[in-house]
Amino acid sequence: MRRAFDPTLYLVTDTLLCAPRSVPEVVAAAVAGGVTAVQVRDKTASRRELLALTRAVQRVLPDGVALVVNDAVDVALIAGADGVHVGQDDLPAAEVRALLGPDAVLGVSVGDDADLAEVLALPPGTVDLVGLSPVWATPTKPDAGSGLGLDGVRALAARAHAGGVAAVAIGGVSAANAGQVAATGVDGVCVVSDICTAPDPAAAARALRAVLTQELIAR
Amino acid sequence: MRRAFDPTLYLVTDTLLCAPRSVPEVVAAAVAGGVTAVQVRDKTASRRELLALTRAVQRVLPDGVALVVNDAVDVALIAGADGVHVGQDDLPAAEVRALLGPDAVLGVSVGDDADLAEVLALPPGTVDLVGLSPVWATPTKPDAGSGLGLDGVRALAARAHAGGVAAVAIGGVSAANAGQVAATGVDGVCVVSDICTAPDPAAAARALRAVLTQELIAR
Repeated sequence: MRRAFDPTLYLVTDTLLCAPRSVPEVVAAAVAGGVTAVQVRDKTASRRELLALTRAVQRVLPDGVALVVNDAVDVALIAGADGVHVGQDDLPAAEVRALLGPDAVLGVSVGDDADLAEVLALPPGTVDLVGLSPVWATPTKPDAGSGLGLDGVRALAARAHAGGVAAVAIGGVSAANAGQVAATGVDGVCVVSDICTAPDPAAAARALRAVLTQELIAR
Repeated sequence: MRRAFDPTLYLVTDTLLCAPRSVPEVVAAAVAGGVTAVQVRDKTASRRELLALTRAVQRVLPDGVALVVNDAVDVALIAGADGVHVGQDDLPAAEVRALLGPDAVLGVSVGDDADLAEVLALPPGTVDLVGLSPVWATPTKPDAGSGLGLDGVRALAARAHAGGVAAVAIGGVSAANAGQVAATGVDGVCVVSDICTAPDPAAAARALRAVLTQELIAR
């Protein structure tokens, strides 16, 4: 990826799953444990609340850990976030890239071959990475389909790479399976529940990071 | 108002109330009947759907009838809309103005003295108009409070004007009461149900326009 963005262990926040702890509190611990990028996602928050949440997370992030905002391009622009991640119901990638300018990270959720083909048909540099979703069916996104499985992730990641786009996998990823997921060839894994619900988010991130490092060395 | 924006009869769309007709169909008829400005509002649509809706409405609007997008600053920017209207849960006005630039119309919902004081404390030119809301309690916005009444609207409109900000009134306005509302001194009235649910939206707009013209001539 041309932009400075390390998706190795990519935390996607869930406000309810973090509770009773605040999202910034969980993010700070997770980053201390080795999270390399953070995406603020809260589909139920108003834009005003999401802006406040984004700014609160920014305040706990060290340099080098990128902050991406899910869906809300306006919030990302106002907060000066590092990028945006859009799903299939969100604003179209080409239009989002035009608003964000060339330096922001733009990720797009991809659930099947058709979604990926749409991304790869865009001008080079429009989309930086695709979120292959879901690896497995997951309770945090009940509308996200039945799951690509490891073979599905492997095939889509290879096609994305051939098209010059990075790929991360999301949906049901935990320390127990992150090694298998990383072995498919993705550039990183997105984690929601395994960190947001962990009694010790720093320890959860460390466990994930250890598995991923082992896998990346083995490659 | 410094920008070319005539809020005399300001239609705020409601997708469900327009059904089974499409929103652009109702807007086209309402504009033929005399609507002077249109705000696309759909809090349940995804941003992708809202962008498509905004573009569909743009295609039926003649020159001179401004198009404003409710809440979604990113959608307004992508569509090249004439402005944005934000409520108290939406992005803060100062940040929205910075994103939109100086030429767009920016409206803000105001429900009481405190809301208006916040708007008037911003640098001149940040907010162009306030939507005094609701005049009367209304089923289309059940969370909008018990109603300002005509006296409340009159007082807030006078304060807004003294601060160099235009004022429109919204909430329960129909042809039956638009004359009284206009007589409070507001620069226009916002209408939702009375046009969106009308069997003949052009006739509904004509009826409203006739009442408003009479009142404005009488002033």
